Amino acid sequence: MRKTVGWQWEASSSILRRTPLERRDLRPDDLAVRVDYCGVCHTDVHAVSTRDGEPGRPLVPGHEFTGVVTETGTAVTRFTVGDPVAVGNIVDSCDACAMCRAGQENFCHAFPTLTYDGVDRHDGSTTLGAYSREYVVRDRFAHPLPAGLDPAAAAPLLCAGITVWEPLYALGVGPGARVAVAGLGGLGHLAVKIAVALGADTSVISRSPDKTDDARRLGARDLVVSTDPEQMADARDRFDVVIDTISAPHDLGPYLRLVAMDGTLSHLGHLGPVTVETTDLLIGRKKLSSAGSGGRLATAALLDFCAQHGITADIELLPSARVNDALDRLRRNDVRYRFVLDMSDLD
Amino acid sequence: MRKTVGWQWEASSSILRRTPLERRDLRPDDLAVRVDYCGVCHTDVHAVSTRDGEPGRPLVPGHEFTGVVTETGTAVTRFTVGDPVAVGNIVDSCDACAMCRAGQENFCHAFPTLTYDGVDRHDGSTTLGAYSREYVVRDRFAHPLPAGLDPAAAAPLLCAGITVWEPLYALGVGPGARVAVAGLGGLGHLAVKIAVALGADTSVISRSPDKTDDARRLGARDLVVSTDPEQMADARDRFDVVIDTISAPHDLGPYLRLVAMDGTLSHLGHLGPVTVETTDLLIGRKKLSSAGSGGRLATAALLDFCAQHGITADIELLPSARVNDALDRLRRNDVRYRFVLDMSDLD
Repeated sequence: MRKTVGWQWEASSSILRRTPLERRDLRPDDLAVRVDYCGVCHTDVHAVSTRDGEPGRPLVPGHEFTGVVTETGTAVTRFTVGDPVAVGNIVDSCDACAMCRAGQENFCHAFPTLTYDGVDRHDGSTTLGAYSREYVVRDRFAHPLPAGLDPAAAAPLLCAGITVWEPLYALGVGPGARVAVAGLGGLGHLAVKIAVALGADTSVISRSPDKTDDARRLGARDLVVSTDPEQMADARDRFDVVIDTISAPHDLGPYLRLVAMDGTLSHLGHLGPVTVETTDLLIGRKKLSSAGSGGRLATAALLDFCAQHGITADIELLPSARVNDALDRLRRNDVRYRFVLDMSDLD
Repeated sequence: MRKTVGWQWEASSSILRRTPLERRDLRPDDLAVRVDYCGVCHTDVHAVSTRDGEPGRPLVPGHEFTGVVTETGTAVTRFTVGDPVAVGNIVDSCDACAMCRAGQENFCHAFPTLTYDGVDRHDGSTTLGAYSREYVVRDRFAHPLPAGLDPAAAAPLLCAGITVWEPLYALGVGPGARVAVAGLGGLGHLAVKIAVALGADTSVISRSPDKTDDARRLGARDLVVSTDPEQMADARDRFDVVIDTISAPHDLGPYLRLVAMDGTLSHLGHLGPVTVETTDLLIGRKKLSSAGSGGRLATAALLDFCAQHGITADIELLPSARVNDALDRLRRNDVRYRFVLDMSDLD
């Protein structure tokens, strides 16, 4: 086994603690990656907050990272040592099902292997995430990091970015589309940048009018204040696509009512059951969708697109030793707009 | 006021009773219609079952009917006495909002006037439905009944038909589309006929394997038995569109799992809140929609289409005096596939 170090959840003290970790020896199609930058995702907050009762399974979060290849397995041809790479929240899949064959490994019928807290499909071990100085990943699930993208600010593209790209792309957003992004956080601010770059007439919906300047700076036309009934009424039926990135459970009705006829609300912010009034869908023939990550093809397309348009996340870069602060602040939504951990302090 | 007779709900005895009714004198844009045939819709069952506590508001159901014009208002130019006409579940709207201007009066921002148990937007009266020998309707909301369509079997097109037409049309169902219809009742059997006529490769999903012959006779390729886990697993991701006409509240998850990537489940069977697991939408980028009626343009298009393809409902025609039997049997789903009341016994 390979030795590294990372930030592992310690249930007894409810913090992530610097811990020696082991990585598997390279399989023929594996890369060893020196993790340089890893984004902090709401999923990480959720994972640590629900893990207290399971002390037997190690938890190391982190599933949007960039770094440099340090070693390659014997069968690897796409990468060589020194290549800058990016990895998201999926690190393996069955390869055989219709979804995998279509490049949508995120929908693998046998369930994809998650970057952390997943089950390695070869040795059954629990996957440990990229809050760590090294990650070993199957080469198919590493992406070349395009030149010109700052590797720290690019890290969040691999989860937050692809999560918003999927619905924007699948729903055909392009010039002329009217898009609203509800919630201006890690996902939301990237959704705005990408929608604007796709040519959409883009608005932000937020309960915080003080984000208006930020919304405009990101390229949005305006900000609709969700707590202002008059503004919400004025925006009725206004958007072909509403990308709902609000991370807490909430009533979808007010957001569905902003969707134009035959349009779609894509609900990304959190998993779990959602309840809608059928009349909120029926009136205007509206559709509800969801998204959460992307396959290899879509991730590659996103990285190309971001390189062309100079899109990365607006980040606050912290030494990885401040990871517990980052999680605390993310719990309070005190971040504009994504924390990224600099892993060099683990050396 | 004009005098007629119809079947009005009597809460004290929980039956519809033959009752003298009044209709308004014709406004300039009104038609008087002799109601010949009126379909019996699940909405009617729902209306009478929830009305016991409101004795002050008269309830006469019936919102899918055909008949003949007997008199026209002074401003009517589209119809003359003797014209066969068809009317659905909407009889007026605001004319002014974006939805009305687009011919989608069913989504009128000021809410359309329902054919029964609605509020007339001019005189504030409760609208009385077409379980009656005469109906007075604004001319815009009457449709010429195409020649060649049996007027009894065509009546259900005006509610059940348009309800299934809306999603099939809006979702672009045509040759090559793979469509499943869940529930083979009043809505479902029309959905099968229309989907087949649109050129779709059409299947039925039902818990009743004994409906297989009927499904094939209606043009379906096969019937997937919803209570058979193996058949449901085999049908995973198989359909571009699933039209869910099941009238009772039910778990949408098993039906969403039959939807192919980027496909849509359209949920028509009942109104009220529905809960879905976001992962059931997320995995495969699936969409949820709903439908319930159609506007004037869509209704006219449906009637043209049905005339071209010889589509009407499979009905059981009853004298209107048997309306209480019809409602009882519909409650037990004992109908293949739609009851239609013959109103001539009211003369």
